[in-house]
Amino acid sequence: MNFQVKLLAMAALAGASALASAQQSSVTIFGVLDVGVQRLKNGDKTLNLESIDGMQTSRIGFRGQENLGGGLSAGFHLEGAIGPDVGAGGDWRRRATVSLSSKDAGELRLGRDYTPTFWNISKFNAFGTNGVGAASNLVYGFDGVSGTAKTVIRSDNSVGYFLPDGLGGVYGQAMVAAGEGTTGRYVGARIGYAGNGLDVAFAISDTTNTAAGDKFKVTNLGGSYTLGPVKLLGLYHVSKQTTREQKNYVVGAHYAIGSGVIRASYVNAHSRNSANGQDYTGKLFAVGYVHNLSKRTSLYTTLSQVNNSNTGRFLIPGGSAITPGQDSSGFEAGIYHSF
Amino acid sequence: MNFQVKLLAMAALAGASALASAQQSSVTIFGVLDVGVQRLKNGDKTLNLESIDGMQTSRIGFRGQENLGGGLSAGFHLEGAIGPDVGAGGDWRRRATVSLSSKDAGELRLGRDYTPTFWNISKFNAFGTNGVGAASNLVYGFDGVSGTAKTVIRSDNSVGYFLPDGLGGVYGQAMVAAGEGTTGRYVGARIGYAGNGLDVAFAISDTTNTAAGDKFKVTNLGGSYTLGPVKLLGLYHVSKQTTREQKNYVVGAHYAIGSGVIRASYVNAHSRNSANGQDYTGKLFAVGYVHNLSKRTSLYTTLSQVNNSNTGRFLIPGGSAITPGQDSSGFEAGIYHSF
Amino acid sequence: MNFQVKLLAMAALAGASALASAQQSSVTIFGVLDVGVQRLKNGDKTLNLESIDGMQTSRIGFRGQENLGGGLSAGFHLEGAIGPDVGAGGDWRRRATVSLSSKDAGELRLGRDYTPTFWNISKFNAFGTNGVGAASNLVYGFDGVSGTAKTVIRSDNSVGYFLPDGLGGVYGQAMVAAGEGTTGRYVGARIGYAGNGLDVAFAISDTTNTAAGDKFKVTNLGGSYTLGPVKLLGLYHVSKQTTREQKNYVVGAHYAIGSGVIRASYVNAHSRNSANGQDYTGKLFAVGYVHNLSKRTSLYTTLSQVNNSNTGRFLIPGGSAITPGQDSSGFEAGIYHSF
Repeated sequence: MNFQVKLLAMAALAGASALASAQQSSVTIFGVLDVGVQRLKNGDKTLNLESIDGMQTSRIGFRGQENLGGGLSAGFHLEGAIGPDVGAGGDWRRRATVSLSSKDAGELRLGRDYTPTFWNISKFNAFGTNGVGAASNLVYGFDGVSGTAKTVIRSDNSVGYFLPDGLGGVYGQAMVAAGEGTTGRYVGARIGYAGNGLDVAFAISDTTNTAAGDKFKVTNLGGSYTLGPVKLLGLYHVSKQTTREQKNYVVGAHYAIGSGVIRASYVNAHSRNSANGQDYTGKLFAVGYVHNLSKRTSLYTTLSQVNNSNTGRFLIPGGSAITPGQDSSGFEAGIYHSF
Repeated sequence: MNFQVKLLAMAALAGASALASAQQSSVTIFGVLDVGVQRLKNGDKTLNLESIDGMQTSRIGFRGQENLGGGLSAGFHLEGAIGPDVGAGGDWRRRATVSLSSKDAGELRLGRDYTPTFWNISKFNAFGTNGVGAASNLVYGFDGVSGTAKTVIRSDNSVGYFLPDGLGGVYGQAMVAAGEGTTGRYVGARIGYAGNGLDVAFAISDTTNTAAGDKFKVTNLGGSYTLGPVKLLGLYHVSKQTTREQKNYVVGAHYAIGSGVIRASYVNAHSRNSANGQDYTGKLFAVGYVHNLSKRTSLYTTLSQVNNSNTGRFLIPGGSAITPGQDSSGFEAGIYHSF
Repeated sequence: MNFQVKLLAMAALAGASALASAQQSSVTIFGVLDVGVQRLKNGDKTLNLESIDGMQTSRIGFRGQENLGGGLSAGFHLEGAIGPDVGAGGDWRRRATVSLSSKDAGELRLGRDYTPTFWNISKFNAFGTNGVGAASNLVYGFDGVSGTAKTVIRSDNSVGYFLPDGLGGVYGQAMVAAGEGTTGRYVGARIGYAGNGLDVAFAISDTTNTAAGDKFKVTNLGGSYTLGPVKLLGLYHVSKQTTREQKNYVVGAHYAIGSGVIRASYVNAHSRNSANGQDYTGKLFAVGYVHNLSKRTSLYTTLSQVNNSNTGRFLIPGGSAITPGQDSSGFEAGIYHSF
């Protein structure tokens, strides 16, 4: 819900400027509840689950902006995940930041935030990073398992900088994060261009991921192109740490049809470890349909299949463990509602 | 606080329809702070406590509705308990659901929610399920100890259906919940009728409560009848699991006097276990007074006494442990405030 | 954000009284995001951190008031700390209370709340209780380490009473808290006078701090005097428990200059333990500048130095451990934003 919008509407109704200062300090409450039924088959074991992020992660948040005059503004953003299946919640680990922004000079942002390298994974694949069809299932960390580096999605202790608007479609951000004496020191950046239906971006990062100083390195390049009802998406992503390397490419499409969207995606993952000779691939095929009941509410269903090479360990997370080489498949249908 | 109400009031003042869309997306912030002083005597041990749910459980929540047109609406409800005695909170384990509702076809609700069998315990006894006088002290699980089945009050991973309004006073709901490969698979339903001062409902459920597939079964029938200042309440409740069985009957009354209500309740509990020959009873007598300072704020006090048969183990929870056959008593006085 | 303010503004615009009841039930959402970069040097070890409370502790809260008529009102206050560096949050351990207030008779407040003895530490030193320059670094518990008694800052299970306004500048409060069968039983009070630029208060408390019944005793006297751009602050604080005793005195000043404030503080701490002959002192010197971008948003920086006598153990918390006698220093610069 956007109180700011409401107050602007009211101010308009009343034809009054007396609300100007109140508007500047409004807090917006926002969130997503996304719950569905999910069926995962890993190897020969099937599990029925209630899913909590088929389209987007369930969440609640509070954010606000203060106009400081002279093109300067301050703002905050607090956002935490919700597990509506079991009533989980309580932290602000999706994002917890304070910002100082200038129209001309850009935004300085401090706190826990998304890493620059995350955004290409999220934006340039047909299913984002949620649900059984998400490319992230085969991209995060190695074997698609996140947590290899704690900066794959977000970073603690970050100081971020964002380019201002008005650079002819060029956008960009950089982030450094303190390791605070342990692991997790992050340095990364992202630069992109959006215009005329095209959106393309490159990102790179380097995380000091172990006490020994080992680096977790991510490089990715992604893009999308929208023409009428069709949106094409593509991503190339490389992760490295000491002897391990994983390369992903992802292609996908959206096709708008009536009040719905058909989504399809193919993900290829190739993982190697020179220390033990491991070398295997995984492939994910996903197709789904989103039926929009309004801008805020949708019904959706997704079907996804992961095929591993002989010793592959890729899978759709949440189900039973697999033995190397086994396949993984998933189906889900749910309700997405945002506020 | 109900922002929706406020916005409707404002729209009325302004005589304007421009707010229609804003109203549809409003979020309501609501909650309860209920804190009191409590004295529990179990056997010969007395404990003084600060209580947090003498009338209702302290809580905070966010909920909203979106009108989708054509009698259809979507909504969410997030609600978590608060422990104001120690500042506890943070989850949404009271309820975390997303709903799709039709005026004609009823409501589909997904997430963590109350079980159908819970509602008869809550609605058809004079002290609800809170405070020293609550019938739930002798009803939940076996020996009044909840947690025997994790579906006594609520269920994770649930899919629920609610009958629509307009069925001549008949109401009803059904729920299934996934066990997700462990315990807690729930199937239950409730059907009732409300009209002309009468409210009566029957509910039944079945929870796969152990890995071995043991069932926790609940059946209950309750009712209330309101005539002028008097409301009479009654409940019959049976819980079973393998060799254990517990039967409860509860009778109670409310008597409205000035801006207050006198409450009285009698609870009988009979627990048997054919495996070890355990067979005992417990009785709870409670009387209390609620003084309403407004619709949102009350002062209250309750006195409660539990008497066990020779080997009985029933008690008012929160105090010291008892040895079988000992009695338990409680007093509390507090402030209830809702927002 | 204060919705009440907004609604009053709207009611004024509309010239309407229809909103009166809605205003009475408004909920205020409020909070602070305060994030900075911090460099701590303890002994010869240096650590870079992202700080979360350079000016005030990052937090979110909800509070509201209900006018019950006849000078009586009810209210609630929920407030929990946020760790924006890692996205921590979720409880209401800063304050979780329900109140019944009378214009003439004062306020009765139940729940988790600040102890009377805390307020003199917080109000009568130039840096409050936050950041590298805070007097609390050398005051809390013994060796500046809080947690010696869990009532140094707040108390669980409290019942508090506050004197009403209109006593000619005299203010005061008293608190008792149940130990609930374990440790932490608190009895304390504070009395003060504010007027003509002067603010002075005395507080005393007694906490049953161990199962053996040992008492943690706090006595403090503090004051401030404001004259034009200058505010002088002073505090004398004594903590005792069995054989341990700690005495602190604190002097400080604020100097308002343009849209900023220069802050300076000196803290002396003397700790003795008659059981083992420990006897040492610590001194903290701090200086800082706050630049106010608005009433809600500031930039700040603070420099602080702690010097220990030969066996002293005082330090600025958050960095590496020190060996007795080593010094500790800290620098921080950050953004403070409230909503």
